[in-house]
Amino acid sequence: MARIDHIGIAVESIKAAARLYTEGLGLSLERTETVAEQGVKVAFLPMGGSRLELLEPIGEEGPVARFLEKRGEGIHHVCLQVDDIVDAMARLREAGARLVSQEPSLGAGGDLVAFVHPRSANGVLLELSQKTRSPSQKGNRDAR
Amino acid sequence: MARIDHIGIAVESIKAAARLYTEGLGLSLERTETVAEQGVKVAFLPMGGSRLELLEPIGEEGPVARFLEKRGEGIHHVCLQVDDIVDAMARLREAGARLVSQEPSLGAGGDLVAFVHPRSANGVLLELSQKTRSPSQKGNRDAR
Repeated sequence: MARIDHIGIAVESIKAAARLYTEGLGLSLERTETVAEQGVKVAFLPMGGSRLELLEPIGEEGPVARFLEKRGEGIHHVCLQVDDIVDAMARLREAGARLVSQEPSLGAGGDLVAFVHPRSANGVLLELSQKTRSPSQKGNRDAR
Repeated sequence: MARIDHIGIAVESIKAAARLYTEGLGLSLERTETVAEQGVKVAFLPMGGSRLELLEPIGEEGPVARFLEKRGEGIHHVCLQVDDIVDAMARLREAGARLVSQEPSLGAGGDLVAFVHPRSANGVLLELSQKTRSPSQKGNRDAR
């Protein structure tokens, strides 16, 4: 059964954006991680088993920088966690969805991830993720 | 503590959009509700304590019809459930957020709801909701 893993929000500045969620809504900014290959800094705000992710570009390249330039701040993607990402990808293809890549790749925290193209998902950039390690095994990548 | 209540996705056709989520992701289309005063038909797809809502306009007026005309299909709003909506609204105002209305109003299913203006929430139309009845008491409005 799929569940909402996180909502990714493209912002110009994590520091400026976080105030609404921490002071305004009482969320905690758990940690910040830089994902150099995506050109983005990510702030994690957990909430009830899901989380918000604030995505701030670290340069002028990368998908979040391009999104901000084109659309301004707003929801960049929604990530749904599934039990079996390969099975979910096959079912989505059968249902007519176009996947950005044909195989899952390794995402933040060691999860397997894949993206459904927004043109085949009602304008939503839909990420799928599958946990590959127990939470207690996490942390190697988080420390950088 | 806030949690993700639902993600509202503006679509041209619930029937066409639902296939991705039902066949592709194994979600169930629990029910459909018409909210005449908002000019919208809403399909509810529960997932792990949260849900997706597919929002199809029932005419050319209303916020979802205007959103589709201006932006095309995509995420229309994110709803966070809070324990005390009046307290959350006050804290958000103190944190610099602009609320669309100054008092909560009655939303679908009898919940209290309020909206934060996207211009003060990083381009996200943020809905707050507070449950006012236990789940077993629900259903009066669902039947129409």
